Amino acid sequence: MSHPRRPRIGLTLGDPAGIGPEVALKALADAEVRSLADFAVFGCPETAWEELAGAAPTFLGTARPLEEWDGRVEGVGLVEAPCPGPADLVRGRPSAAGGEASIGFVLAAIEAAKRGHVDAIVTGPISKEAVRMAGYPWPGHTDLLAEKFGSPRVAMMFAGGPLRVVLVTIHVSLAEAIRTLSADGIVGAMHLASDALRRWFGVEVPRLGVCGLNPHAGEAGQFGFEEREIIGPAIERAKAEGICAFGPVPPDTAFHQAMRGRFDAVVAMYHDQGLIAVKTVAFEESVNITLGLPIVRTSVDHGTAYDIAGRGAADPRSMKAAIRMAAAMCTKERGTQR
Amino acid sequence: MSHPRRPRIGLTLGDPAGIGPEVALKALADAEVRSLADFAVFGCPETAWEELAGAAPTFLGTARPLEEWDGRVEGVGLVEAPCPGPADLVRGRPSAAGGEASIGFVLAAIEAAKRGHVDAIVTGPISKEAVRMAGYPWPGHTDLLAEKFGSPRVAMMFAGGPLRVVLVTIHVSLAEAIRTLSADGIVGAMHLASDALRRWFGVEVPRLGVCGLNPHAGEAGQFGFEEREIIGPAIERAKAEGICAFGPVPPDTAFHQAMRGRFDAVVAMYHDQGLIAVKTVAFEESVNITLGLPIVRTSVDHGTAYDIAGRGAADPRSMKAAIRMAAAMCTKERGTQR
Repeated sequence: MSHPRRPRIGLTLGDPAGIGPEVALKALADAEVRSLADFAVFGCPETAWEELAGAAPTFLGTARPLEEWDGRVEGVGLVEAPCPGPADLVRGRPSAAGGEASIGFVLAAIEAAKRGHVDAIVTGPISKEAVRMAGYPWPGHTDLLAEKFGSPRVAMMFAGGPLRVVLVTIHVSLAEAIRTLSADGIVGAMHLASDALRRWFGVEVPRLGVCGLNPHAGEAGQFGFEEREIIGPAIERAKAEGICAFGPVPPDTAFHQAMRGRFDAVVAMYHDQGLIAVKTVAFEESVNITLGLPIVRTSVDHGTAYDIAGRGAADPRSMKAAIRMAAAMCTKERGTQR
Repeated sequence: MSHPRRPRIGLTLGDPAGIGPEVALKALADAEVRSLADFAVFGCPETAWEELAGAAPTFLGTARPLEEWDGRVEGVGLVEAPCPGPADLVRGRPSAAGGEASIGFVLAAIEAAKRGHVDAIVTGPISKEAVRMAGYPWPGHTDLLAEKFGSPRVAMMFAGGPLRVVLVTIHVSLAEAIRTLSADGIVGAMHLASDALRRWFGVEVPRLGVCGLNPHAGEAGQFGFEEREIIGPAIERAKAEGICAFGPVPPDTAFHQAMRGRFDAVVAMYHDQGLIAVKTVAFEESVNITLGLPIVRTSVDHGTAYDIAGRGAADPRSMKAAIRMAAAMCTKERGTQR
């Protein structure tokens, strides 16, 4: 019998001008967190050294330049990705240099994942604005990851406390979320949710609660047609394709039902339908998970928080939760235990 | 010094074919609940007697026909409102007779409130369908109460656990809620919320968190224009009229902030924005409160539940919560302590 090994997590520091390096360091300073996995930390000493070296001499291994790294990692090792000089980077502000570094760390982690050096990527917060200033086209991590891994369909899952929620539409206005709601989108998200629950959460027959769009799930057509014309048919199609699903469920009772064990995940039609529930129930501990990639990817559920960067005041709970979730997902996945 | 007296609550049984009489009886069987107020119960022995008389001989006073009632009540007294014969009413199904009785109980309670015989109305669940079958125009309690009390503007507040939420739009499709969102509607709801918190909740300077409509409250216009063109200006107008308000707040963080004490109430733009938060946090204990009426009105937060009517399986927690809330609101209100 082969020996089970610990999951290997590629952790990206996020924008060095934000709180990413700080929350990563604080999370890794926790021995219980370090016990969950081996960590390849993708960052740069020039900008993150202050936090990473200063307070963490006991657990941080030698820094190795990316091009010299052989993929091995035990405990916590810093892998130096290409970085701007400190002169180009101002703590607490978005900059082209910060955006450049942010993306560089993620690209290095993706490369490591493709080579099989890491099982999961946990990402620190990057700034949309800084990334744009650096001239990159991706509005956020998810699009970058989907493109580089060649994943045609991805979805965001948020997990917090007893809730797991998968979003059908994301960062668009509410009016556009309604306009673009489609059976294809719903069925796609249902498959991603169901596959993820089986592969990474150990749920053999995942039960999905699929929300309606309108109050009371439309109250038999009185408050909107989308349940009858789009969501209901999508659920029937997904069921015919082997998915165990319930709905359209009235949105204001779906999450309560899930918390009481009736559903393994809730499929939400729009951003706030899902996130109001998750963040109200489990604010500091909610984790953003990308479904549809070949690897596990989790993320902190907050931004760069430039306003408090460098003060030591950042709360690492979300980073710890993202790491714990990634480690648990890797451990559940068949094949990790080898 | 005048003697403080207990609040007087007019309690309507709701549709006699549903679980209304049962949850009312179960709630009133609780001595702690009875200690909070005196209760005039508006119903009819012909249809509700089974529950009311059978299990409640110790606390229920003599039934008095409405026309003979002098307005006095001490402890719990049944006031007989006009009722259909039992032959016209089938337990567990909507009927014209049930709708007729439902409305009759509420009209009697309204009349009692107008005469000053009760300080608050707590309503049991009625059926939209039964009310329609009886030929009445009101889709629900709120419209009926607003019309009979001559209240030009009312709003629904939901209170549950640590959350109080006031809704700007209610029972319409999500698309229509967006289309009809107006600064007037938002400012009106803000005034009702602020007034209610002062009058009934003992909050001297109510702080309102006003939600945006779109994800991240529009993210500076990237995900929708309503924050800039409708909600933001409404907040400014309300502030100029003396209301302490914050926003537009990203909807997925507003409720968490309120739970941590930052806001005394959240103003939600649409039904599920508010109710997903309240019902996920406090499902069995959320109370529906009507703002804008001259009296306190609370309601159970569930329907007639015809499917379980008459089995003794109905859960009285929501009714107890509605009674407790009404009693607490009356007690807070200046003038009740006389």
